[in-house]
Amino acid sequence: MKKHQLKVVKIGGKLIENEHDLNLFLEDFTSLEGPKILVHGGGKMATELADKLGYKTTMVDGRRITDANTMDVITMTYAGLINKKIVAKLQALQSNTVGLCGADGKSIISKKRPVKEIDFGFVGDVEEINTHFISSLLVQDITPVFSAISCSKEGQLFNTNADSVAAEIAIAFSSEYETELFFCFEKNGVLQDPSDDTSVVEKLDTVRYQKLLKDGIISEGMLPKLHNCFYALEEGVSKVSLGGPNLLQEDSIHTKILK
Amino acid sequence: MKKHQLKVVKIGGKLIENEHDLNLFLEDFTSLEGPKILVHGGGKMATELADKLGYKTTMVDGRRITDANTMDVITMTYAGLINKKIVAKLQALQSNTVGLCGADGKSIISKKRPVKEIDFGFVGDVEEINTHFISSLLVQDITPVFSAISCSKEGQLFNTNADSVAAEIAIAFSSEYETELFFCFEKNGVLQDPSDDTSVVEKLDTVRYQKLLKDGIISEGMLPKLHNCFYALEEGVSKVSLGGPNLLQEDSIHTKILK
Repeated sequence: MKKHQLKVVKIGGKLIENEHDLNLFLEDFTSLEGPKILVHGGGKMATELADKLGYKTTMVDGRRITDANTMDVITMTYAGLINKKIVAKLQALQSNTVGLCGADGKSIISKKRPVKEIDFGFVGDVEEINTHFISSLLVQDITPVFSAISCSKEGQLFNTNADSVAAEIAIAFSSEYETELFFCFEKNGVLQDPSDDTSVVEKLDTVRYQKLLKDGIISEGMLPKLHNCFYALEEGVSKVSLGGPNLLQEDSIHTKILK
Repeated sequence: MKKHQLKVVKIGGKLIENEHDLNLFLEDFTSLEGPKILVHGGGKMATELADKLGYKTTMVDGRRITDANTMDVITMTYAGLINKKIVAKLQALQSNTVGLCGADGKSIISKKRPVKEIDFGFVGDVEEINTHFISSLLVQDITPVFSAISCSKEGQLFNTNADSVAAEIAIAFSSEYETELFFCFEKNGVLQDPSDDTSVVEKLDTVRYQKLLKDGIISEGMLPKLHNCFYALEEGVSKVSLGGPNLLQEDSIHTKILK
């Protein structure tokens, strides 16, 4: 029997910061048929709030060191402001949604990232997705909207990479559904020429990926994102796409990731 | 057939601000048997964050004028920080919970408070509780934890009085369940002598209430709270209690509201 489809869509910080683009994106998201899940980050807004509150933001290799104050700021901005604004906007578009963080319904269980050279603080890596609870929403035609905060079994909130959250959710549902994973960010996909937004690599398989890596075309910031893309495909996700704010439109030019 | 019981518990700002008291309270809450719902406010924390961000807080008759910046602050503190901290603490106590605001699952629909002498801004009064969605959590043994934010049918978030949210939820469920409503605040109940915390009026019916009012015993801050108590009883809630952080303990001294 053909499995039903489930779409998991991740939107990044820059798309969230631009209200006009966000509104257009959410209209596209609302038009997607069938069960779907939205995952959002919100990096810069947390940094701005931390600045205003006088909390220092420390980044190591593009990753945020999350002390207790920073975790509070992240909880306020991601699970509070951004999450509820998106939920309210989607309700206004007649899309019934529930905003969640990983602590809600034990939906995203994680453990603290092990301390090696660096202690990232309250940063967690996903251990388990509670598909049972999330499914109980999907069967009611309710769309879950996740902020990238997870929770340990012991009840500690953890800052978690939003790309990884989206990938792990799509993977966890891939035995039950034919899952499609969409990463929407500020560029139209992987670019052959990083300075030319029209030079989109439309199909990226591992061979081409290795070549682009060797040629130095893939920027460092793209590495973890593309790692998540290939990892998701390997772990059972049917389709992975990477593109700009219009990625969900049928005629969008974007990068399709292939095994 | 005897109906099942449902307990709706509201906790106020001062209890939330004291981590030690909050932890003890949440242990009591976890021990409550049967389906239950928690509703929380968080007034002072929002004011403190607004101060730090340089937003002016304007109160009229003890009520907050909620402009767009204030609504953002409330969304961050109530639906973000406080809500998710409580959810994580309850998960740590093995109580499976989901933190919600009224926009989530269209659970608390409100409309903007009509402008008479004062425009309260983004302040809403409850119109409808979505018992169908909330029940779908209760039947999974999941405890909903509500921040006092509601949402209009048009998708506008509104700051809403937490006592009213708790009362309206208890009323909405009273045809399906035998509902009990608990208001936990910083005093042990209605006090005969406001300066003596042991002078608790253990039973308060409308006759006694009118007498206390006439004698000037009821402070102005207590009026809306007691209004909600009597209103809930009139509208079908079976039992209403008012007391301190230990209200949920069986031997607590508190005020029982009677018709």
